[in-house]
Amino acid sequence: MSDFPLPEYNDVAAASHRINEYAHKTPVLTSRTVNDMLGAEVYFKCENFQRMGAFKFRGAMNALLQFNDQQRKAGVVTFSSGNHAQAIALAAQILGIPATILMPEDSPEAKIAATKGYQGKVIFFDRYKDDRQQLCRDLAEKQGMTVIPPYDHPHIIAGQGTAAKELFEEVGELDAIFASFGGGGLLSGTALAARHLSPDCKIYGVEPEAGNDGQQSFRSGKIVRIDTPKTIADGAQTSYIGELNFALIQRLVDDVLTATDEELISCMRFFAERMKMVVEPTGCLGFAAARNMKAQLAGKRIGIIISGGNVDLGNFGRYLV
Amino acid sequence: MSDFPLPEYNDVAAASHRINEYAHKTPVLTSRTVNDMLGAEVYFKCENFQRMGAFKFRGAMNALLQFNDQQRKAGVVTFSSGNHAQAIALAAQILGIPATILMPEDSPEAKIAATKGYQGKVIFFDRYKDDRQQLCRDLAEKQGMTVIPPYDHPHIIAGQGTAAKELFEEVGELDAIFASFGGGGLLSGTALAARHLSPDCKIYGVEPEAGNDGQQSFRSGKIVRIDTPKTIADGAQTSYIGELNFALIQRLVDDVLTATDEELISCMRFFAERMKMVVEPTGCLGFAAARNMKAQLAGKRIGIIISGGNVDLGNFGRYLV
Repeated sequence: MSDFPLPEYNDVAAASHRINEYAHKTPVLTSRTVNDMLGAEVYFKCENFQRMGAFKFRGAMNALLQFNDQQRKAGVVTFSSGNHAQAIALAAQILGIPATILMPEDSPEAKIAATKGYQGKVIFFDRYKDDRQQLCRDLAEKQGMTVIPPYDHPHIIAGQGTAAKELFEEVGELDAIFASFGGGGLLSGTALAARHLSPDCKIYGVEPEAGNDGQQSFRSGKIVRIDTPKTIADGAQTSYIGELNFALIQRLVDDVLTATDEELISCMRFFAERMKMVVEPTGCLGFAAARNMKAQLAGKRIGIIISGGNVDLGNFGRYLV
Repeated sequence: MSDFPLPEYNDVAAASHRINEYAHKTPVLTSRTVNDMLGAEVYFKCENFQRMGAFKFRGAMNALLQFNDQQRKAGVVTFSSGNHAQAIALAAQILGIPATILMPEDSPEAKIAATKGYQGKVIFFDRYKDDRQQLCRDLAEKQGMTVIPPYDHPHIIAGQGTAAKELFEEVGELDAIFASFGGGGLLSGTALAARHLSPDCKIYGVEPEAGNDGQQSFRSGKIVRIDTPKTIADGAQTSYIGELNFALIQRLVDDVLTATDEELISCMRFFAERMKMVVEPTGCLGFAAARNMKAQLAGKRIGIIISGGNVDLGNFGRYLV
């Protein structure tokens, strides 16, 4: 996807204007308990309350709103078993654009149902045999569809950056901001917003420990590929990060941290018990890392982006019991 | 408690000003799914995000902020095993007022711990042998403490009305508003705000079906007493409503409705799955009733007060699995 230019802050600002009437301006919540725990002022930007339950709607909407008439008619195609699938399906439904989603045939029933619920056309592939990117390109070439990948696209990155933009505009400059880090869409967009709106803010991406390809990439200076990691943070189960995302992250991000599944479950329980929120495992990454940095964060103003809340209800219940 | 005059809307407005710097202005959330389900515009006032997890903080803070120096020094006493206990303990802690809370000796460990966590002094009583109101009066007389009961008090009622006031100020006039109905603090305060800020708004209180003393009282014109009802809605497990509350409810409320425990569980699951919120059973009462009134509510603008989110994590998990 490197045939696109790197997005800039202006693209985030334009995305914000573009998606304004479609996306929720999600609430920023605070908790005295958290502030006391960390000895800091912590602001949670709650994208679990975004439409379809995750920040992904921002990028998808920003991308589809830039389709021309021909693209709108031919439709959009993407590959995802997770929140990006639902985001594209919902954004396309709102705009009356046909959407085709390639999903692994062993995707959870709930996610297939949610995508179909937004009128997305689901095509299954075999994750062990088929090349999903090739399937996507074939559909794009043969049927004229436009591919909107989950993270390695400037319109996606700019759209995801609007969450952090809203946060800074609501609470002012911050000393540090934490974002979940899977393919890098949220993190690179967040970094664009942070560097412009709060230049001295430290920017941290947080990955599941079992899948620290982003941390390896960040530290080695080249994109590292790993096998699909085993972690409950299914939104960050990527095996390599995007090229555009990597270029921005290299340039703008201060560090990449990790969190274990146990830490994520502990955060999920905390969010449910003390802040009355359902947060998916991936959405807990930022808080999990911040909790481990008490000494560095004392006395500081901290932003944490809660990326989403789409967790299977049965699994969620079992984490709490 | 009928030696107090009935509170008026002015008292709600004054309470709002008084507690402003202490209480959260809780978010108003909407859900397209809910709007589609009911064919209406529905606004949820989320008091589960209030400090200590329920609207009760508003009334407690409003009451304690009106203590004179002597009262502040002697302290406050109340009886409650639930959210009011935590609300009084937290409000008193903030203001540096000693708080004594009478709790049944078989109260859930979590609730005792939460109350003690806010530095409340807990005194246990035997719910089968002791008269908690008498115990309270004794402490008040002997030690000069001021009794702040859970709902039958004008400062409590005025404080609870500030949630609805904020809702109307944020979203404008409504066609109907639904509030959980236990002892009547939230409902009578809500009614004061609604009648003043949205005069044509229908006002509904919602009780657990197993404990419909409020409905019986409303319909018969006198306060009906029942045995402590068996329901998961522990915040509305009252056996009779307050005198001041009853006087206001009789005058201002349009109807009292009920919801079954099964309906409450279904709403809890819905809030968790679709709106990413933890809502306690009592907090689901309003939505449960509204869901049963689809025909009457079609095309209308509806407010629903989610009263709180304090549910034991283990129980909550089991409702979801």
